[in-house]
Amino acid sequence: MVAIARLGEHIGEEVRVRGWVYNLRESGKLLFPILRDGSGLLQAVVFQKNVPPELFAQVRELTQESSVEVRGAIRADARAPGGVELDLREISVLQLVPASDPYPITPKEHGIDFLMDHRHLWLRSQRQTAILHVRHQVIRAVRDFFDGEGFVLADAPILTPSACEGTSTLFEVEYFGEKAYLTQSGQLYAEAAALALGKTYCFGPTFRAEKSKTRRHLTEFWMVEPEVAFAQLDDLMHLAERLVAAIISRVLENSRPALKVLERDSTPLEAVQLPFPRLSYDDAVCRLQAAGSTMQWGDDLGGADETLLSKQFDRPVMVHRYPAAAKAFYMQPDPERPEVALCVDMLAPEGYGEIVGGSQRIHDLELLRRRLEENHLAEKDFRWYLDLRRWGSVPHGGFGMGIERVVAWICGLEHIRETIPFPRTIYRITP
Amino acid sequence: MVAIARLGEHIGEEVRVRGWVYNLRESGKLLFPILRDGSGLLQAVVFQKNVPPELFAQVRELTQESSVEVRGAIRADARAPGGVELDLREISVLQLVPASDPYPITPKEHGIDFLMDHRHLWLRSQRQTAILHVRHQVIRAVRDFFDGEGFVLADAPILTPSACEGTSTLFEVEYFGEKAYLTQSGQLYAEAAALALGKTYCFGPTFRAEKSKTRRHLTEFWMVEPEVAFAQLDDLMHLAERLVAAIISRVLENSRPALKVLERDSTPLEAVQLPFPRLSYDDAVCRLQAAGSTMQWGDDLGGADETLLSKQFDRPVMVHRYPAAAKAFYMQPDPERPEVALCVDMLAPEGYGEIVGGSQRIHDLELLRRRLEENHLAEKDFRWYLDLRRWGSVPHGGFGMGIERVVAWICGLEHIRETIPFPRTIYRITP
Repeated sequence: MVAIARLGEHIGEEVRVRGWVYNLRESGKLLFPILRDGSGLLQAVVFQKNVPPELFAQVRELTQESSVEVRGAIRADARAPGGVELDLREISVLQLVPASDPYPITPKEHGIDFLMDHRHLWLRSQRQTAILHVRHQVIRAVRDFFDGEGFVLADAPILTPSACEGTSTLFEVEYFGEKAYLTQSGQLYAEAAALALGKTYCFGPTFRAEKSKTRRHLTEFWMVEPEVAFAQLDDLMHLAERLVAAIISRVLENSRPALKVLERDSTPLEAVQLPFPRLSYDDAVCRLQAAGSTMQWGDDLGGADETLLSKQFDRPVMVHRYPAAAKAFYMQPDPERPEVALCVDMLAPEGYGEIVGGSQRIHDLELLRRRLEENHLAEKDFRWYLDLRRWGSVPHGGFGMGIERVVAWICGLEHIRETIPFPRTIYRITP
Repeated sequence: MVAIARLGEHIGEEVRVRGWVYNLRESGKLLFPILRDGSGLLQAVVFQKNVPPELFAQVRELTQESSVEVRGAIRADARAPGGVELDLREISVLQLVPASDPYPITPKEHGIDFLMDHRHLWLRSQRQTAILHVRHQVIRAVRDFFDGEGFVLADAPILTPSACEGTSTLFEVEYFGEKAYLTQSGQLYAEAAALALGKTYCFGPTFRAEKSKTRRHLTEFWMVEPEVAFAQLDDLMHLAERLVAAIISRVLENSRPALKVLERDSTPLEAVQLPFPRLSYDDAVCRLQAAGSTMQWGDDLGGADETLLSKQFDRPVMVHRYPAAAKAFYMQPDPERPEVALCVDMLAPEGYGEIVGGSQRIHDLELLRRRLEENHLAEKDFRWYLDLRRWGSVPHGGFGMGIERVVAWICGLEHIRETIPFPRTIYRITP
């Protein structure tokens, strides 16, 4: 049995292939069943005069998504998908989808609700399969990058106690009679791990019960969060840009066929070369105001601002040193200018917005205590987090990168819901 | 700055190292501060007559977990941990842990509750760091194995709708006013993905609200679940044994220092060579009864039975074809003997019990419907799962492997709670 993606290595040989009927074209005495097997598409050919009449009749009856095993010789054909064609000599039909109960997703257009209701089948489409292939390469590239740099994986827990930063965007879980919450970020745990392991990352699902209905939000999404002992803001920016460049380079190397299926112009991806531009928040505000934005110094960047700004660059741009007041309590203030935080957001080009957000963390115990108080957060909920500053504290920092946003950008997708096998949104928890 | 693990490449050179004080030995006019940086341990040496008195005094005051940066020359020393020693010439103390508020985890013995309460600090111990290094290698080996075999990652959702198999072991989540549940297994979703992608796996956290207090149970644990279209039971066994052999071989290649820290005898791991023995459930029952077990044909294997059986082999043993009645509704009956299922459990040696459980899945729509009914499961909760048998059904199967159990076995641990950075058990959801 040979995977369709590898048939190019078998030209001139007779092979067996297993898969599903993707389409069937008929042209006079020729039949062209197109098969898919998850690795690619294969065009088979049946010429009426070369095969027994029963075989011809059997192929002619094939319906979309019928499962089959075929045998035949492989020949090069530049016009065929994948560059090869199979001269079909034998077929065994495992399941013939009956014409009376046809596969519900046809090549015609379907509404998005219909497709999402049939996500378990929709995944079989060329486009969705291509996105999953890219997602796979992105995740693989992320892990290879960190593992290659000597980071040790230390996954953060999903179930977490007390709702540290308010419960409004947290999912609550019944935990043996107590309340627990689904994690929004592994960062605090990654900080503990960084002081044990030096360089660490966690990489798992995270959850936000946001009532956002934008094309950039899911309630369940995967995030990778490196955290590095002794790292300062410049180190983090250097790490983040190399990570993103490594991902893009991997996708361009391994996922050209998928990008082609997605009709994704790879030119903007090829422009993603090191170094990425760095822009202070101050400069970002000037640029935005010059470009017509009404935002003022002190505001966080909204989605529209991010789009406006990122469109001025041909590669991801890193905006650093936001006003401390607009950012999380744990961010280290710039010692030279305490009103800004030593933080960075990376905005993807082509209007895809923030894909990375990170910072140095406060490593001074008393300063962190003050910041908790200013933010009306109870010290008792952060006792173990404060411990990290009590014993062996060092400057450290890290960032989070949302996988789905990166995949949406790389694939050039309109909506983030196609970037994950089974998306969860405010309206959807099925299938 | 050089990582301690790489100092062997810098013998004769002067280097700078950053880390934490792990221990301090004094011997007359010699001080031996031991540093850790997450990558290893380094012994430094300060000879009173070679350094200024202030430096000697400063080193003498160092307390456990104080954070420091040191400079000095590296020389080979077979007696030192890591095989090198640093001749300390300069030190900068980032944070001196005060003697009045010492690091709470000292080299003396602590009770398990105390250590678990301080898990955020306990991770810094040599033993816990070693376990995390092994865990990292195990996870890396799993992903390399599947990626290398052409599997495409398709992560299953964590938030799932209706409680398909009863709610007793499910965690309930409040989902925008509706009830949702944390996944127990990604299998059903992996089946959908396999019919799209051919060979797929999911690898993420899974949850069981079991009130088990055994040393083998966590409420949150990571599981890898491959699923393969067209795979039959023999294919699954072949895949599972190659996966486990690849993991062991990777750990033996990359984690010898960690195994040494754990005082893990590697001889039993070296015996884990292909092929693994296969044993029918029938034969397993005979062996168990002969060995004194009171179990009867029809019973599932209990923990004690698993231990008894696995001790008869020097490598993991695969027990196949359990009574269908003792197993899940979706398992394919053996066509030659419908009272047994085409399933397999792999038992780790040395009494570690089940690490892999898998099966062929029923691919016939009517049979699956009957099995749902026999198990009093509502067809409406499985509509999309049944769809997979309606369109393009093919024989397929897969298995799940629990990462923590594999790590516990490889590290030779008594209790599974040390195998994950932040364990969650019936009694514990902190830190």
